[in-house]
Amino acid sequence: MGLTLADNVLAEGLKRIQREVDAAFDVILPVPGDARARLVEAMRYAAIGGGKRVRPLLVATVAGMYGASRSAAVRAGCAIEAIHVYSLIHDDLPCMDDDAMRHGKPTLHVQFNEALAVLAGDSLHALAFELLAGHEVSSDPFIRAELVCCLAKASGHNGMAGGQVMDMAAEEEQFDLQGVTRLQQLKTGALLMCAVEMGAILGKVPEEGRHHLRAYARDIGLAFQIADDLLDHEGDEKLAGKALRKDEGQGKATFVSLMGPEKAREQARFLSEQAIGHLAVHGAEADLLRALARYIVERDH
Amino acid sequence: MGLTLADNVLAEGLKRIQREVDAAFDVILPVPGDARARLVEAMRYAAIGGGKRVRPLLVATVAGMYGASRSAAVRAGCAIEAIHVYSLIHDDLPCMDDDAMRHGKPTLHVQFNEALAVLAGDSLHALAFELLAGHEVSSDPFIRAELVCCLAKASGHNGMAGGQVMDMAAEEEQFDLQGVTRLQQLKTGALLMCAVEMGAILGKVPEEGRHHLRAYARDIGLAFQIADDLLDHEGDEKLAGKALRKDEGQGKATFVSLMGPEKAREQARFLSEQAIGHLAVHGAEADLLRALARYIVERDH
Repeated sequence: MGLTLADNVLAEGLKRIQREVDAAFDVILPVPGDARARLVEAMRYAAIGGGKRVRPLLVATVAGMYGASRSAAVRAGCAIEAIHVYSLIHDDLPCMDDDAMRHGKPTLHVQFNEALAVLAGDSLHALAFELLAGHEVSSDPFIRAELVCCLAKASGHNGMAGGQVMDMAAEEEQFDLQGVTRLQQLKTGALLMCAVEMGAILGKVPEEGRHHLRAYARDIGLAFQIADDLLDHEGDEKLAGKALRKDEGQGKATFVSLMGPEKAREQARFLSEQAIGHLAVHGAEADLLRALARYIVERDH
Repeated sequence: MGLTLADNVLAEGLKRIQREVDAAFDVILPVPGDARARLVEAMRYAAIGGGKRVRPLLVATVAGMYGASRSAAVRAGCAIEAIHVYSLIHDDLPCMDDDAMRHGKPTLHVQFNEALAVLAGDSLHALAFELLAGHEVSSDPFIRAELVCCLAKASGHNGMAGGQVMDMAAEEEQFDLQGVTRLQQLKTGALLMCAVEMGAILGKVPEEGRHHLRAYARDIGLAFQIADDLLDHEGDEKLAGKALRKDEGQGKATFVSLMGPEKAREQARFLSEQAIGHLAVHGAEADLLRALARYIVERDH
């Protein structure tokens, strides 16, 4: 387990996209000289310098495999990260998961206040679509509209937000493996799938050429969630930078509670290998995606 | 005051768009047969059968003046209304304005719960952009991308959400008339301006042909807010369907507190007349906009 990030390809790739996303948010979110300053400070607090940036890495890597511009991909990566970050802010609210720590620092509503956490989340949500609809992402309006459509679907009631409501329902009724799979496909899978899809849109990959990328995304999405459940079960709170074992305390069904830790780990590794298999048509240009598939199941936080 | 809606043009126009928007949301938001049902029920509770639909009316009327399709305009109208509705849901939350009544019925977090109110708001937010990026709004991707850009800017930290944070700041520091004007231009003005702009985008009005429409929107936006402050000061809670006089209780600066009710009413009427003046280049096709400008300052709720 201590071998995570040993893969240099991935370590370099993550460091690079983290730097690029942080730099882009810094430019996109200047603090205004009026009463909105606190709002933008809160947005910056949540958006800059935290998180692994897995979604932007997926967008940029797939886009790069098909020759799309790096700066456009970083901007689209910022958009999907803005959605991810807003969902974490709202998820952490007292009326939701009521979490006090995130990425090793106080959550937004603790550091600022609840009202500002709601509004900073909402503002990052709107920012995502402003970024995607802007000319900097592509001079082709068809690409801009496709990106918006993809991200809006993945984040709304038929995607991430729908998955979160299913997750709330899972606290009251016992979900089976099929139910947990469906829940997680929406809650975290939809946005990971969308990241790969956005890379393909930027790279102008025709619809029929996206099947293997979608299959890859589906597999790493599930592997990611199983690994997350394993980390929640046996991980280190300090490394995670957040509270763990909340699901277990609530008796909520997870991959680990339903399959047991051994079987779950086995399944995560199987999915990771299967994901890499879907990339067989690609050469070295897909190495970062392969490294990511391995990292996702071996990471320690 | 009892003469509001006496104008038949407007009464018919509002009735028509209300029917169309309700019917569209009913089709757009079918209740799924899984654990997301509660989420979609909450979205429907907030989005269907409430509100005056002023923003969709503006989109559809301006779009119609320039020959755009009615069904496309109604769909774009639903998008901007989804943004308006989500902002009301989040605004009503206990950590924000903590309101229990809206449009004469319990607010979403009272009827359902707080977590669902956060997520239903977030889902309507995403839905707005999904609607605008879809082919049903326009076969021209440039128009779809422009609509998304316009709405995202108007709702984010440089628009509505920014105005809401200014509004929170106004509870702590005393704003002057210029400050209140700026606050309201963002908080409610940006979205009204966007409604007119969206109509112009659908109608393919060139940039240089939009000045008079923007001037109209700016004036009715301010008139609308001054009238709102007057209604908050002297209105009937039953007619309003929500709690009134909260700003006064908090000693918050409003147009009425800063100008006095007489001067404020005078200013609202002046702005309404000025807004109508900006429509001088148009004939009868702009009568609905003229009627709306009059209604905004004479309405009793």
